[in-house]
Amino acid sequence: MQIAVIGASEPSKEAYKLAEEVGMELGERGVVTVTGGLGGIMEAACKGAKRAGGITIGILPGSDPSDANRYVDSTICTGIGYASNIIVAKSGMAAMAVAGALGTLSEIAHALGDDIPVIGINTWSIFRDSDETQPIVYADNPIDAVDKAIDAASRRSGIYSYDTRRRFE
Amino acid sequence: MQIAVIGASEPSKEAYKLAEEVGMELGERGVVTVTGGLGGIMEAACKGAKRAGGITIGILPGSDPSDANRYVDSTICTGIGYASNIIVAKSGMAAMAVAGALGTLSEIAHALGDDIPVIGINTWSIFRDSDETQPIVYADNPIDAVDKAIDAASRRSGIYSYDTRRRFE
Amino acid sequence: MQIAVIGASEPSKEAYKLAEEVGMELGERGVVTVTGGLGGIMEAACKGAKRAGGITIGILPGSDPSDANRYVDSTICTGIGYASNIIVAKSGMAAMAVAGALGTLSEIAHALGDDIPVIGINTWSIFRDSDETQPIVYADNPIDAVDKAIDAASRRSGIYSYDTRRRFE
Amino acid sequence: MQIAVIGASEPSKEAYKLAEEVGMELGERGVVTVTGGLGGIMEAACKGAKRAGGITIGILPGSDPSDANRYVDSTICTGIGYASNIIVAKSGMAAMAVAGALGTLSEIAHALGDDIPVIGINTWSIFRDSDETQPIVYADNPIDAVDKAIDAASRRSGIYSYDTRRRFE
Repeated sequence: MQIAVIGASEPSKEAYKLAEEVGMELGERGVVTVTGGLGGIMEAACKGAKRAGGITIGILPGSDPSDANRYVDSTICTGIGYASNIIVAKSGMAAMAVAGALGTLSEIAHALGDDIPVIGINTWSIFRDSDETQPIVYADNPIDAVDKAIDAASRRSGIYSYDTRRRFE
Repeated sequence: MQIAVIGASEPSKEAYKLAEEVGMELGERGVVTVTGGLGGIMEAACKGAKRAGGITIGILPGSDPSDANRYVDSTICTGIGYASNIIVAKSGMAAMAVAGALGTLSEIAHALGDDIPVIGINTWSIFRDSDETQPIVYADNPIDAVDKAIDAASRRSGIYSYDTRRRFE
Repeated sequence: MQIAVIGASEPSKEAYKLAEEVGMELGERGVVTVTGGLGGIMEAACKGAKRAGGITIGILPGSDPSDANRYVDSTICTGIGYASNIIVAKSGMAAMAVAGALGTLSEIAHALGDDIPVIGINTWSIFRDSDETQPIVYADNPIDAVDKAIDAASRRSGIYSYDTRRRFE
Repeated sequence: MQIAVIGASEPSKEAYKLAEEVGMELGERGVVTVTGGLGGIMEAACKGAKRAGGITIGILPGSDPSDANRYVDSTICTGIGYASNIIVAKSGMAAMAVAGALGTLSEIAHALGDDIPVIGINTWSIFRDSDETQPIVYADNPIDAVDKAIDAASRRSGIYSYDTRRRFE
């Protein structure tokens, strides 16, 4: 199982620590951690995952593999700039958003638009006009977040043919 | 000047009408209307723009130019799926969001992340944890929305070199 | 009708002149000229098209509309780097390759893979192992090239549903 | 080290066998095999790599991880269609082209344009007008091909800052 961890490249210390704990938790449970491969939250999640013996994938915006943080095992060089955010969002069975700025919001939107569940810690709230539903599932701490992400990812099995018919608008 | 109009392919009748009026207003003021080229809000904005003698560009997710609605003058076939949302968002000096679902939210996030001002009518509200600022500028009606979009777009001139240095996270 | 003109950003003087004549010929016949929007062959084709009163579209690799050469009417900011080559190739009913380096070769390959006819002047030759067929149609001069491009583009009408079923490998 | 193997999804039996031997050779030498993740040459290379205990990455054009062949360890869902070819080409330190159709040619062009060495077996020949140089390095058999790919990849270390300044045209 692969789960994406998304968040800003210049997070607060608290957010960095949260993401590191999320990565450790993923690594311990044998889940592959997918990130954008750069610094900040991306680095923290990879660092935690490696500390727990996990595997990490970094999907970079640029063309230079040496842009990846040193905790990335497999580096994907997209060369498509921040459109690579979409690929990060799509390459997990669930996405975990830790804090984050506008790039994180776009990843959240792309994941949700693809029916990929999004678990959030200290991140964006989004509301549509005249709709009180909050499509992001919030978690209180890293363990709760990973529990919810794995649970949501597990329930997705076999729904892909449905996904592809669904209009992403 | 080019301004993007973004929104869902299956809008309510009210939203369709709003987008058509936005397009008319853009066309009358000589602004080129950029959309994703498909149906719904995209079609409505193009229809309004053409009625007012304006020019329209449709940036399609697919490879078939006949997917474009019949009010599109210039068709761009990206073939990159919904990553084309990003290109729509980037190709206006401002972006106007009319209602919209998750694709619209991703376009809003990409535009804002690129320092492109976003004017919203009946669309998403987004809030970051511990931050009360709302980065979307809301408008009450199509004329107000086009006023605000042109005003915001005009104030952007000459800031591009800054944009490219800014980290989009 | 839209036709793409592809080629290098640092061409020889002869190639620049050829592309300018191609653009003039397209403009005179009312065909919209689509290019990558930057310098060299792209600029030359747009310059020729505008001289003849034609319309031009520039599909840029970056996010800054001021990167476009001054003969571009409509600027598309993709922000996806040289993957934008694909969109240029896809957005014409035919593609004309004038001289060109490796980016041009990738555009030729993408156009041919999408069943878009490619007309070449002083450009690449490509041969597959154990196959003598040359999929590029060569032209001797700008008028011949535009004749062949318009002819090939015209014969494509109505074949799109076939295109989308075809495997691009 | 990661090396990309590129080629068609409907190859001849001979080409399939060649790609399988290439994958085995990569796996035995501890090189990660990167492919487009689908059938044909992509499947053959992954199958060979796994037989030799190697690691495989599949970079899919679509959004459904179950599109990947069963020999793919890590699946990247790009959702950007055949623009994903570029990412495959960019994500190896060298690229090996086995037979292949137009998609393979575009991958060859993108790799070469990024200064990534391309080793070919039974694949395209490309010639630029008035230039006898053949930028593809040909190999006679899988072992020779992997020798040449690893050699070329090794000589690339430390040249990335150069790469990014180079114009890809």
